[in-house]
Amino acid sequence: MSMFDKPILVFQTDFTYKEGAVSAMYGVVKTVDRELEIFDGTHEIPQYDTWSASYRLLQCLAFWPKGTIYVSVVDPGVGTSRRACVAKTKNGYYVVTPDNGALTHIKREYGIEEVREIDETVNRLQSTRGVAIFHGRDLFGYTAARLASGIIDFEGVGPTYPVDEIVEHEILEPIIEEGHVQGIFEIDDPNFGNLWTNIPLEDFNRAGFQYGDFVHTKVLYHDTVVFEKDVLFHQSFGFAEKGAPMLYNNELMKVAMAVTQGSLVHTYGLSFGADWKVDFTKA
Amino acid sequence: MSMFDKPILVFQTDFTYKEGAVSAMYGVVKTVDRELEIFDGTHEIPQYDTWSASYRLLQCLAFWPKGTIYVSVVDPGVGTSRRACVAKTKNGYYVVTPDNGALTHIKREYGIEEVREIDETVNRLQSTRGVAIFHGRDLFGYTAARLASGIIDFEGVGPTYPVDEIVEHEILEPIIEEGHVQGIFEIDDPNFGNLWTNIPLEDFNRAGFQYGDFVHTKVLYHDTVVFEKDVLFHQSFGFAEKGAPMLYNNELMKVAMAVTQGSLVHTYGLSFGADWKVDFTKA
Amino acid sequence: MSMFDKPILVFQTDFTYKEGAVSAMYGVVKTVDRELEIFDGTHEIPQYDTWSASYRLLQCLAFWPKGTIYVSVVDPGVGTSRRACVAKTKNGYYVVTPDNGALTHIKREYGIEEVREIDETVNRLQSTRGVAIFHGRDLFGYTAARLASGIIDFEGVGPTYPVDEIVEHEILEPIIEEGHVQGIFEIDDPNFGNLWTNIPLEDFNRAGFQYGDFVHTKVLYHDTVVFEKDVLFHQSFGFAEKGAPMLYNNELMKVAMAVTQGSLVHTYGLSFGADWKVDFTKA
Repeated sequence: MSMFDKPILVFQTDFTYKEGAVSAMYGVVKTVDRELEIFDGTHEIPQYDTWSASYRLLQCLAFWPKGTIYVSVVDPGVGTSRRACVAKTKNGYYVVTPDNGALTHIKREYGIEEVREIDETVNRLQSTRGVAIFHGRDLFGYTAARLASGIIDFEGVGPTYPVDEIVEHEILEPIIEEGHVQGIFEIDDPNFGNLWTNIPLEDFNRAGFQYGDFVHTKVLYHDTVVFEKDVLFHQSFGFAEKGAPMLYNNELMKVAMAVTQGSLVHTYGLSFGADWKVDFTKA
Repeated sequence: MSMFDKPILVFQTDFTYKEGAVSAMYGVVKTVDRELEIFDGTHEIPQYDTWSASYRLLQCLAFWPKGTIYVSVVDPGVGTSRRACVAKTKNGYYVVTPDNGALTHIKREYGIEEVREIDETVNRLQSTRGVAIFHGRDLFGYTAARLASGIIDFEGVGPTYPVDEIVEHEILEPIIEEGHVQGIFEIDDPNFGNLWTNIPLEDFNRAGFQYGDFVHTKVLYHDTVVFEKDVLFHQSFGFAEKGAPMLYNNELMKVAMAVTQGSLVHTYGLSFGADWKVDFTKA
Repeated sequence: MSMFDKPILVFQTDFTYKEGAVSAMYGVVKTVDRELEIFDGTHEIPQYDTWSASYRLLQCLAFWPKGTIYVSVVDPGVGTSRRACVAKTKNGYYVVTPDNGALTHIKREYGIEEVREIDETVNRLQSTRGVAIFHGRDLFGYTAARLASGIIDFEGVGPTYPVDEIVEHEILEPIIEEGHVQGIFEIDDPNFGNLWTNIPLEDFNRAGFQYGDFVHTKVLYHDTVVFEKDVLFHQSFGFAEKGAPMLYNNELMKVAMAVTQGSLVHTYGLSFGADWKVDFTKA
């Protein structure tokens, strides 16, 4: 069996790379099986933010080869009774994660074929038995490595449990009407300061908005209007003036808002979450 | 064919690792060809800074094995008419990048043997057709992966165009005279707060400056003197007192200035670019 | 010989990933031997902080496969007379580092079987001969690559020198008595803002402290009490209220202090080092 017959492991955590946690975690993987390939997804998920963990899985998972094992460790409840699980998605991936909301988006988008609770009596690094606070190293990474290397199969992870017991965050549905669309800012691009809505481009087009339109755009925070402008909707940043807000189709084919070569988040003091509604009408 | 017959891919971008962009981009590469090796060059190029992208290629490229494909995605004009290209350097590397100034330094230092515009009708990830704003994932990474895997050869990238049409930043030449050298601070070391000039050590020596000399050093911002001191020129930081400014030979064999175990940039409020002249005379 | 017969290289430095230093260093490794596997330990060791370098080696080294070569480049004395060395640990690893205190913790914890000074006349990248300030690229990474690839064996590094000449930081021993334990905060977790003591869980238990206890905890900075509270000692963060300080057993089986889902360091203005004593008595 070649190393390429074993699935890739991709890790996302809120550990950062400032100290040795990631190194110790990857060392355990390579000790289980030297041949395993490891990639950084990101180690800069905002701390304890299981919503962002869930969204980042949606953003990345399906671009990796089928069979890839994505390990997500954002774990505010580490060492308590929350379940540690491995989910098998209907589109052919595995996600190893605390069951704390991190599966929300991919369950909804791709579906979960089966989910298993990690049996700690078997799939737990034994040399660190007394440690309760580093499941990334001692449980999640270790189990993912054993699964990838073929030491255990999916059944070997532990007992299955009902898919509808998976912990999910609430997701709001956008309103799509002729000439009117309302949704929320669902996540940010923390680097460029853009905000991404939950509105698919397809629905936005169907409601009558096209590239080149100026769209009357209101942002409401707890139902108070905090931004109101006619904003250009176009296919990429270069079509708007530098410093101007614009609407575009983001990398996941959803409507997003940016300031060209600037930060929408900082310029207008906006953010994301269920309290940040965005409302589009014909200008 | 072994995995080691395929060139390494190194990526530099201004994406940061804060969200999922790098992961999605690398996932596409591994989906094209599981055997490809990927390295982070850096994902912290200052945003939209095509000058820094160009300088970082100069700093790193030639240390990698011949044949390495360096993918540079600093792309303020993404989705507009700027060319997306693959350049073959005269010293045996490939650079995949928007043609927006990022090739300036390596063109000058190594020469470009041939440059080709990426043909989007062939070398574009089809599953994300409607997305115009993430060429790192959909075009540059994807094309680099196809080239590295042998799915396409260099001709398969797209049509060639004249090397002298490559977009270049202006580069100033230093003045080298007996006992007098003038140049600019060309780039920083953002971590340690050092500044690197465009003056080769060899020219500095030829003008009469030697390790152990105190050199009369003036820094001018828009022709106003903002720093003037006699500064020790020596081979490494340990030769100057902690906290003292010093001149040294940097990793690219050019004259650079530092504060020993401190930050020149922060201590003296200096920066880099065409407006930051530095002038050396005998003390 | 397969690529997996060659040891993994793991790198930790204070370079950050903001510019091209790490890329150039890794490029040299892959130019020496394309088959070598490279991992980031961390590139965010605090600048010039050889204590943290030493602690991070302790945190990570033994989780990697036996034979792994850990390259640690935190090097305030680069280019001066400090020794550049390769140490072979008694538990089967190699550490390539300036001999400036970075070996302190692993020497004490695992022991050093033998240490050799790198012979620069042999084990130095020749193409950058005039550069004195980038030993990460030109000396440490290059030597580690040659050792990993089998171009040199351990004897080929350079001459051996007495293990007791290795430069070490002073380490304070905790006081362990029935019902009373005193130590220091030895290091932080810079991401979550936790502080780790030098007190092994085993000794803490032996002194009479158990999970579920509230422990009378004093922190002294230069012998002035700066924190005094009864603090819950438990096995993981989920057992304390959000925002409350708590004591726990950290990933290295030592007593540590945190604020649940908050930052102990920021909330109480605490830090680590020999001046930061922590004193525990029965509440």
